[in-house]
Amino acid sequence: MKINANYLNLKDGYLFATVAKKTKEYKAAHPEKEVIRLSIGDVTLPLAPAVISAMHGAVDDLSKKETFKGYGPDFGYESLVNAILGSYARKGVSLAFNEVFVSDGAKSDCGNILDIFDQDNVVMVPDPVYPVYVDTNVMAGRKIVYADATAENGFLPMPDQNVNADLIYLCSPNNPTGAAYSKDQLRAWVDYALERDAVILYDAAYEFFVTDPSLARSIYQVEGAEKCAIELCSFSKTAGFTGVRCGYTIVPNALVRQGTPLNKLWARRQSTKFNGVSYITQTGAAAVFTEEGERQIGESLAYYRKNAQTIANCLDELGIWYTGGKNSPYLWLRCPNGMGSWEFFDYLLENANVVGTPGSGFGKNGEGFFRLTSFGSAESTEEACRRIVALLKKG
Amino acid sequence: MKINANYLNLKDGYLFATVAKKTKEYKAAHPEKEVIRLSIGDVTLPLAPAVISAMHGAVDDLSKKETFKGYGPDFGYESLVNAILGSYARKGVSLAFNEVFVSDGAKSDCGNILDIFDQDNVVMVPDPVYPVYVDTNVMAGRKIVYADATAENGFLPMPDQNVNADLIYLCSPNNPTGAAYSKDQLRAWVDYALERDAVILYDAAYEFFVTDPSLARSIYQVEGAEKCAIELCSFSKTAGFTGVRCGYTIVPNALVRQGTPLNKLWARRQSTKFNGVSYITQTGAAAVFTEEGERQIGESLAYYRKNAQTIANCLDELGIWYTGGKNSPYLWLRCPNGMGSWEFFDYLLENANVVGTPGSGFGKNGEGFFRLTSFGSAESTEEACRRIVALLKKG
Repeated sequence: MKINANYLNLKDGYLFATVAKKTKEYKAAHPEKEVIRLSIGDVTLPLAPAVISAMHGAVDDLSKKETFKGYGPDFGYESLVNAILGSYARKGVSLAFNEVFVSDGAKSDCGNILDIFDQDNVVMVPDPVYPVYVDTNVMAGRKIVYADATAENGFLPMPDQNVNADLIYLCSPNNPTGAAYSKDQLRAWVDYALERDAVILYDAAYEFFVTDPSLARSIYQVEGAEKCAIELCSFSKTAGFTGVRCGYTIVPNALVRQGTPLNKLWARRQSTKFNGVSYITQTGAAAVFTEEGERQIGESLAYYRKNAQTIANCLDELGIWYTGGKNSPYLWLRCPNGMGSWEFFDYLLENANVVGTPGSGFGKNGEGFFRLTSFGSAESTEEACRRIVALLKKG
Repeated sequence: MKINANYLNLKDGYLFATVAKKTKEYKAAHPEKEVIRLSIGDVTLPLAPAVISAMHGAVDDLSKKETFKGYGPDFGYESLVNAILGSYARKGVSLAFNEVFVSDGAKSDCGNILDIFDQDNVVMVPDPVYPVYVDTNVMAGRKIVYADATAENGFLPMPDQNVNADLIYLCSPNNPTGAAYSKDQLRAWVDYALERDAVILYDAAYEFFVTDPSLARSIYQVEGAEKCAIELCSFSKTAGFTGVRCGYTIVPNALVRQGTPLNKLWARRQSTKFNGVSYITQTGAAAVFTEEGERQIGESLAYYRKNAQTIANCLDELGIWYTGGKNSPYLWLRCPNGMGSWEFFDYLLENANVVGTPGSGFGKNGEGFFRLTSFGSAESTEEACRRIVALLKKG
């Protein structure tokens, strides 16, 4: 019996563990200090009242024989799929009912979607990047090539005609850099993929943070993308569902490779290895896209955006270069005074009692950069910024 | 770009679709007839009051900033993992905290667990069997050998020393046959696996239906199983969670292959390609194993068991050979008068207006057999049995 030896090639996922360990050690040594975490990638605001009310109703449905729900439809309840279709329509994207697959989250889909592709495909991944793209492909033993995201290209790598790839990961607005592609930039990627018969895996988990109309909220806002792109999306950051677990993946009917519609392959994968999402979760998710729900989640998004603006103002005041923060919950800054990522981490923790995330943990191009997030409370975000300004102004 | 061509080798999953189509056509042609479905593999009773109350509490937690929960622990909340450990302890099985992995269901785990094994393993699957075991391995391009389950071995195949396998699926109580292994029989499988360094994937989704103390409720009731078996379990049939989605998989620390603990591989798979189960679901699941919860789910299980007994009495009266029904929600019967599976399906539908599931849909050895389930209402189960007796007694 043989194990999947590719797993032995995985690097240890030490980034967040090390951040947590260093923070804990500092707090233990300085119990009197109030440490503020601007490293958090999780939401902190409660679910919208419309979602809560829908979920209570769904729990009640499960309490009575007449309204009890057992196995649901494989790819999502009609009400939720229609709500998702409506949300896309408001972005100017028209999708068919069978192109939407409801799941327990974009992270699961991001890994599981690889099942439908042969191992012998070359994968292109931006650097720096969300570590799951790399790890899931290492597990499958695929060759990985990197697209360099740097300060020079605003952390938005563009296609290089000299590099070939079969599967291309794009994430916009990006985790960790907060940089977001314009529709024109995405068009270049769509053209590149179409020329090569490649497939783009487009992670749009943060699309609800986009307010600039020139930026893409869906890759299907670019013509031709339906022939080369799968889009992964999530309620996690949009509606605070990180602990509730719901996402959706779009596989267009027009996306055909080797004569086979990928929609049919994904449908088969999901109906065989997945059994749908909790009725309670789906009922809550459908409420997100009601008028009341959208207004309420709009308030939460505005709260996080204001935090991002607070941090952006602080960096502007200090003259520190950064991406993100405007159409993204993340800010990605160049460490001041030529410091390395971990060096700045320690400096900030020790001198301002603020925790961020070292950019080097997301890939080699992240060295010398640093991620701050807007998911904390307004009060602690403002206090953290006051401390950072005070520290670096005198520095 | 290449698709996973193994998918093209999958057979169409036509069994339940054909059952549904034929039933629909019959009802359309005979709108005056009351058709009873004893084909249903889904539960019909509502969730236990203790579960409902816990879930309402969890929804309330998510409505307030102070009690809101974002990302949970990768492998399950401590309260739920401890509740599962307690449930195992009551079966005489002692497990470590890190050996339990909470998931969104046994079906997902059943497919996803294959990620940690090399493609080049021979898989042994009983015939007839739950189709997911076969399909998930066809998707990975693995060689499959079948262990024949027949009337002669009571649909409980035992190891054949002349056949080698690296991965062995066992499901007890079995879907579709309802047959359940004794601890002694399982010991033979454990010995066989240990001799070959094979791994048993033990599907215990129906273990809560077992009342006979000589039958296994967990493979870990057999000594040595912790060195060769992974156990998959579910709240679906135990507590009516088919639409709520929660299961758990046990990967013992003692299970080591090629020098690598499989527990570590599965932990890496799940933390990379999965993001935990809904807080609401987990809170409800933990309530299943409280004293109140166990009493309440005991009542539901008793209700389904009584239905199974009703069907068993009917088959006994008719002198029809069957397995299951006593420690399982399923009854697997030999079609009377030498009829084939689909022939009997049509005969029963047309003459008794009762729908069952043709055994041939579960594998070649299912031909001539038929599955009835106990998940309907008591009234309709009794009425179906009256009709079956009336039809076959005169026949």
